[in-house]
Amino acid sequence: MKKTKAAIVGYGNIGRYVLETLQTAPDFEITGIVRRDASNIPAELQPYKVVGNISELPQTDVAILCTPTRKVEEYASEILAKGIHTVDSFDIHTQIPELHQRLHAIAQQHNRVAVMSAGWDPGSDSVVRALLEACAPKGITYTNFGPGMSMGHTVAVKAVEGVKAALSMTIPTGTGIHRRMVYIELKDGYDFKEVAQNIKNDPYFVNDETHVMQVESVDNLLDMGHGVNLTRKGVSGKTQNQLFEFNMKINNPALTAQIMVSAARAAMLQKPGCYTLIEIPVIDLLYGDRQELIKHLV
Amino acid sequence: MKKTKAAIVGYGNIGRYVLETLQTAPDFEITGIVRRDASNIPAELQPYKVVGNISELPQTDVAILCTPTRKVEEYASEILAKGIHTVDSFDIHTQIPELHQRLHAIAQQHNRVAVMSAGWDPGSDSVVRALLEACAPKGITYTNFGPGMSMGHTVAVKAVEGVKAALSMTIPTGTGIHRRMVYIELKDGYDFKEVAQNIKNDPYFVNDETHVMQVESVDNLLDMGHGVNLTRKGVSGKTQNQLFEFNMKINNPALTAQIMVSAARAAMLQKPGCYTLIEIPVIDLLYGDRQELIKHLV
Repeated sequence: MKKTKAAIVGYGNIGRYVLETLQTAPDFEITGIVRRDASNIPAELQPYKVVGNISELPQTDVAILCTPTRKVEEYASEILAKGIHTVDSFDIHTQIPELHQRLHAIAQQHNRVAVMSAGWDPGSDSVVRALLEACAPKGITYTNFGPGMSMGHTVAVKAVEGVKAALSMTIPTGTGIHRRMVYIELKDGYDFKEVAQNIKNDPYFVNDETHVMQVESVDNLLDMGHGVNLTRKGVSGKTQNQLFEFNMKINNPALTAQIMVSAARAAMLQKPGCYTLIEIPVIDLLYGDRQELIKHLV
Repeated sequence: MKKTKAAIVGYGNIGRYVLETLQTAPDFEITGIVRRDASNIPAELQPYKVVGNISELPQTDVAILCTPTRKVEEYASEILAKGIHTVDSFDIHTQIPELHQRLHAIAQQHNRVAVMSAGWDPGSDSVVRALLEACAPKGITYTNFGPGMSMGHTVAVKAVEGVKAALSMTIPTGTGIHRRMVYIELKDGYDFKEVAQNIKNDPYFVNDETHVMQVESVDNLLDMGHGVNLTRKGVSGKTQNQLFEFNMKINNPALTAQIMVSAARAAMLQKPGCYTLIEIPVIDLLYGDRQELIKHLV
């Protein structure tokens, strides 16, 4: 079997889990890891080439972008231009359509494939949402997140003056409405009540029910578990009250990494262009003989 | 907008719901209904052409096969050869891979598309199963059906001597194991205990916990509601205990019909060949502008 040659670009939380996932995937080999500081080589990276730029790696089919989401366009554009497919988990929902169009043009220009927003939301949840619209075109879908840590909200809290360390948990209260539970360590000389009010006034929190609590150690609270409860009540044809529900309780970066690796597999099978997961046949995400997969899954 | 011209082939339970669904779909028009007895025209079919053979209808893009599952191959083969795409909800799981290969050859030969097994199981459930394998490649998926009427089991009961009318309900007891609740009306002169034992000895029932009950009226019990609870516990990369669950409570023929119509839409977009739903991008099932769908769903 000819294995797909994959590089990991960025080695933070997601990158670590992508490494583990590629190690378990029978159809992949790892050409190396790209990170800003290529001299920083932890024990688990000793067997691999660690470089500062993907051009220093042996021939690579697909790059799995584990960079911050705001860096995705820059890295994807550069790597596609080098003739390498890309996979990212770009997660700023409102910017997806525009980035999709830009990456589509670049991917086509270089005859390569970009799979974008290939995490769990956007990503696998998007596939479920699209499938449920095919099952019941009229109706309402609610995506309820959590309980779990929100990266974006946590970063927003950390930016508030007086905050030493922070964790923002997303708690679902149903119908797509979320409570924010914010845990902070306070810097010396700051007033908790004032800092708490500033957090609640932040655009990230101002529209949500937000509770701020002071704790001794934020680190002691950190857990990468997350969850989703996605519901749709709708109409199939003229028949009302069709009820659908999708739930998961998962390790957040582990699931993101697995879906990115599955998407890297699919990247090898698409025509040049940019794709979100709803534009790719689900079977293309899977390892194995297609007839066997059809027998086993359909 | 150029509408897709669809014909309904077979006008039983599913055919009726397909008619309703096509009436609600903004991108379809109905060229007519094909049924064995074309002189049998109920009120709701008065506005349509009802014929005995699809060749008698105006030019048709896609035929939605609402025939018994065992007739699918015969109808699909004949209709593909006439240059018309087909959609079916063939549901004998063990025979899907072979039928897939045969229809693939016929569809390619005639430059047309066959979408097969496009109901809810096989069908939308298959997409969920495939997606969950992409999320957690190692692990176990259980598909729990019901509570709801099993068409296959009901037909098997009706074939037992002494049974006048029957209903076999599928009751999920977890981990993919099902109880069969069988309700029968007895023909005169038969012994209930003996008939009940013959039902339990039937290959359809011999491996399941089966309860047979005699009732005054089976018709009074009939309800087309059905359900699924599909679970997967598995491993993403090297991370254990990832938990996924999909539930639905639905009108059975209404959901089947809606998915078939969605699949007919997708048939117009695929290259010639035969496809199960896991081989089709989910977005192709949906009506609307693709950029808008991506914005709305991803």
